[in-house]
Amino acid sequence: MPNPIERVRRTVWKGDSFTVAERPIPNEVAIAITYGGSTQAVMMATPADFEDFAVGFSTTEGLIRTPKDITSLEVIEEAEGVELRMWLVPELAETYSRRRRLLAGPTGCGLCGIESLTEAVKAPAAVSAAGHLRPQDIVAAMAALPARQVLNEEARAIHAAGFWTPGEGLVAVREDVGRHNALDKLVGHLVRSERSAKDGLIVLTSRVSVEMVQKAAAIGAPVIAAVSAPTALAVKMAEEAGITLIAIARGDSFEVFTHAGRIGSGAASSAA
Amino acid sequence: MPNPIERVRRTVWKGDSFTVAERPIPNEVAIAITYGGSTQAVMMATPADFEDFAVGFSTTEGLIRTPKDITSLEVIEEAEGVELRMWLVPELAETYSRRRRLLAGPTGCGLCGIESLTEAVKAPAAVSAAGHLRPQDIVAAMAALPARQVLNEEARAIHAAGFWTPGEGLVAVREDVGRHNALDKLVGHLVRSERSAKDGLIVLTSRVSVEMVQKAAAIGAPVIAAVSAPTALAVKMAEEAGITLIAIARGDSFEVFTHAGRIGSGAASSAA
Repeated sequence: MPNPIERVRRTVWKGDSFTVAERPIPNEVAIAITYGGSTQAVMMATPADFEDFAVGFSTTEGLIRTPKDITSLEVIEEAEGVELRMWLVPELAETYSRRRRLLAGPTGCGLCGIESLTEAVKAPAAVSAAGHLRPQDIVAAMAALPARQVLNEEARAIHAAGFWTPGEGLVAVREDVGRHNALDKLVGHLVRSERSAKDGLIVLTSRVSVEMVQKAAAIGAPVIAAVSAPTALAVKMAEEAGITLIAIARGDSFEVFTHAGRIGSGAASSAA
Repeated sequence: MPNPIERVRRTVWKGDSFTVAERPIPNEVAIAITYGGSTQAVMMATPADFEDFAVGFSTTEGLIRTPKDITSLEVIEEAEGVELRMWLVPELAETYSRRRRLLAGPTGCGLCGIESLTEAVKAPAAVSAAGHLRPQDIVAAMAALPARQVLNEEARAIHAAGFWTPGEGLVAVREDVGRHNALDKLVGHLVRSERSAKDGLIVLTSRVSVEMVQKAAAIGAPVIAAVSAPTALAVKMAEEAGITLIAIARGDSFEVFTHAGRIGSGAASSAA
């Protein structure tokens, strides 16, 4: 299998002269996710945690309810990338084929523009978990993340998604050059280990776009905290989905964009 | 039309207390790109420069050869997003429909894994432009970019792609929450204004993944320079495509990963 990090030779310009030396950089490979022999998606991703990725993607796309819905999962290395080849239980396989035929349409014309847009911004089921956390929990969770970003430590430019609980700290961290993939891998790990996302916090090194909120909602995660900013559409979706969206979380400060009631004590909520 | 930036109220935790105030954040909207009434792709993007995006995406996906191949382009605001509705000249429309039917397949089963992977990492035609630049040009081009990132200046977390030439400086800059979209918008602007990419430099605020190299190659751009790191697959693709890939370009330093011969004088190329 390809390595998640590769060393390459490159020419460095600094100030007024060139030198040549090696440097580690992140790798990415084309990953085809297939069900019953048909390709659902091809994504560029960091070659690591393939099973987590397959199960996580299937979960956040709403194609499976539990990992047991996948009857077979093979990780197959091809010349041009990696295929994550899955077969679903008969009832889901039938639903999947019907949906594919519908999307393709009798004349291969697919969804029209309005249908596609409605599909893209569909609101997930609302998250109902209590999920109360103290401000100090958010600061501690974000502070714990860098030490667990082992790929990023070596090659930089690699995102991470982690799951943190007040009792256990950082339970798991997954890394990927793509922030969506990092979260899908984390989700895959959580559902494969039958861990509920209700009692903790998803931490992200990235921005929060609307898809990140949709993915968190797919496993009922009540709180997301990210290093960078959210988009306005992500804020709207988090509001509707009942998710506490925290972003621009750096050092001892962070900003709560939705459902701030989950964070802090009674005293804290009496702020200006 | 939605605004590229929105102001939202949020709760800020800093040190030991909460305050509430407004902040500008980037917006994103679902954008459906359709040809002849069928959706080719739905992407989340910054609502700005829609025509550039439509033409640029069509170009980098290889669906058109020139903007004239699009006989009609409408920007239509829907409840859930924006449709970029295009109609192609008859010969391309026919090719497009045939390709869609092929992808859908007689039983709606689509491409298998290997076919999908091969399609994803297909090498573009090699770039042959001379494109010589001095190290000082790279430093100057990167230094000129921040002042032209008007959306990012206000809301942060927004990527930019620009085109710079030794004679004119920064010719154009396009911004988007998605780095792929920023580059597609820039490409759209360049081809719509009939400007060759051969005499300049594409500058990016982002990482360089393989798709960024494929997009640059689609318009024959000889040199890319980016603030962050490249992936190993992007380096491989740039090597094959004859593109000079410069990354980690910050302050007065940068790193040249491929085809370094385009940068610098004879003296410079005698480095260790």
